[in-house]
Amino acid sequence: MELINGNEIATTIIAELKAEVSALPARKPCLALVRVGDDPASVSYVRKKEKTAAEIGIDSRVILPPVTISQAELEALIDQLNADEGVDGILVQSPLPAPLDELQIFRRIAPEKDVDGLGTVNLGKIAQDDDTGFVSCTPAGIMALLARSGVDLKGKHVVIVGRSLLVGKPVALLALQKKAGANGTVTICHSATANLPELTRQADVLIAAIGRAEFITRDMVKPGAVVIDVGINRVEDPSRKAGYRLTGDVAFGPVSELASKITPVPGGVGPMTVAMLMSNTLKAYHQRTHA
Amino acid sequence: MELINGNEIATTIIAELKAEVSALPARKPCLALVRVGDDPASVSYVRKKEKTAAEIGIDSRVILPPVTISQAELEALIDQLNADEGVDGILVQSPLPAPLDELQIFRRIAPEKDVDGLGTVNLGKIAQDDDTGFVSCTPAGIMALLARSGVDLKGKHVVIVGRSLLVGKPVALLALQKKAGANGTVTICHSATANLPELTRQADVLIAAIGRAEFITRDMVKPGAVVIDVGINRVEDPSRKAGYRLTGDVAFGPVSELASKITPVPGGVGPMTVAMLMSNTLKAYHQRTHA
Repeated sequence: MELINGNEIATTIIAELKAEVSALPARKPCLALVRVGDDPASVSYVRKKEKTAAEIGIDSRVILPPVTISQAELEALIDQLNADEGVDGILVQSPLPAPLDELQIFRRIAPEKDVDGLGTVNLGKIAQDDDTGFVSCTPAGIMALLARSGVDLKGKHVVIVGRSLLVGKPVALLALQKKAGANGTVTICHSATANLPELTRQADVLIAAIGRAEFITRDMVKPGAVVIDVGINRVEDPSRKAGYRLTGDVAFGPVSELASKITPVPGGVGPMTVAMLMSNTLKAYHQRTHA
Repeated sequence: MELINGNEIATTIIAELKAEVSALPARKPCLALVRVGDDPASVSYVRKKEKTAAEIGIDSRVILPPVTISQAELEALIDQLNADEGVDGILVQSPLPAPLDELQIFRRIAPEKDVDGLGTVNLGKIAQDDDTGFVSCTPAGIMALLARSGVDLKGKHVVIVGRSLLVGKPVALLALQKKAGANGTVTICHSATANLPELTRQADVLIAAIGRAEFITRDMVKPGAVVIDVGINRVEDPSRKAGYRLTGDVAFGPVSELASKITPVPGGVGPMTVAMLMSNTLKAYHQRTHA
């Protein structure tokens, strides 16, 4: 069994981006980070993005509207960032507090600045095999992990558990694309799937994105499979100082005995998402500079 | 075995649309049909669309630019139709003659008039489970055939052979949606799939959209499966006056002995596409009228 080390791969990508940015002329890429409210996880994610941007040499502009901001006011803020020549990428940290309509906000972001890839146009571009779009950070991170671990999906059966807009659907469309590294046969399972273990056992590459701790057990995995665990779940653990530990959607111990390659949680897909956001921001910068 | 009669279902839908249109106030829906060049199949398809529109009471405007039209000129024509208040839907008949870039033309159509559903925004909306968009006519026709034949995809394994932008990908996203009639487990196979018969034999619902005559044989189908045949292929047949016969992607005779329900070719999916185009045009009319 080989561990797919997301920390290491992300560090490599960040170093590559840093070298690329340092060679840029005067203006540096600029990422606007919008965070509404003080959800502790959101605070920590935005801080991490800001820090990684600084490390690479990408300017970031953190915008913290009050939690009372209305939908119309937030849309006006997005419009302003869309029009701002100095901003290359816009990220609105999810989840937005109620009653804000998150999807409408994501859609408001100009497609050419939608570095989180959650708008309608960038989703459609994945289906059109169009590389000019932005792939959202988790599916992009999964594809980068596979590519940099030498996993070619061609002719492989990729089974995805979870059909979310953030992970399952875009990663399915990416794995299916007619291009080098992709060309997989793709099955998408979810809560309404009748015979889940029978399907997951067929996977050459199994991608778990369900959000349920250790849901994928040993009997659901084919020996030799590549296993990508997208889940990050808190499980109570009185033996830990924090009172909990983080675990993925895969029962790592038993499954790792069967898998040919597997991502750990934490340290697998997680660290890749911020690296992909930075990569998308640099791509937006190049596209806007050469447009 | 029950035959899924596309002619009959399409006739019913057209009658429903006709009743709906006849109840509309003064202005009728208007569909612009753009055909470049004289490809005989395109001529016949556009004529069929015009005729069906007339039957329903939808105005159509057939525009026939010369085959020498440039990309820029065709884009300018689309822009003009986009801006035309009197036009509800725009269809550009595929295939466009070389060197015209079809995808760029499809994308040029305003999303709210893209009744053929091939633009980027309408594709993205399918992935977002957003019903305000337009689903392209073949996948919409397949879903309507299933719904009107009493086939509920929930928990069923839907295996799609073919990953085209016109059929395979959108129908996969539709079958996967979290809504009544859908909620299927979806597998998408294609030319690079390693073990095709093994996968197709798992299908509760098998959708064949490969474009190869009688490619799906009896041994590839599970007894009791619902079989949707999207292919229309010409096969030489000296016994026919035309010298050929039309056949689907499924070996109808042997497979129909196993299937619980099956679409014939012709008379299955084919007739549904024009009905869906009309349904989309009426939807565009309503959305534009109430916007």
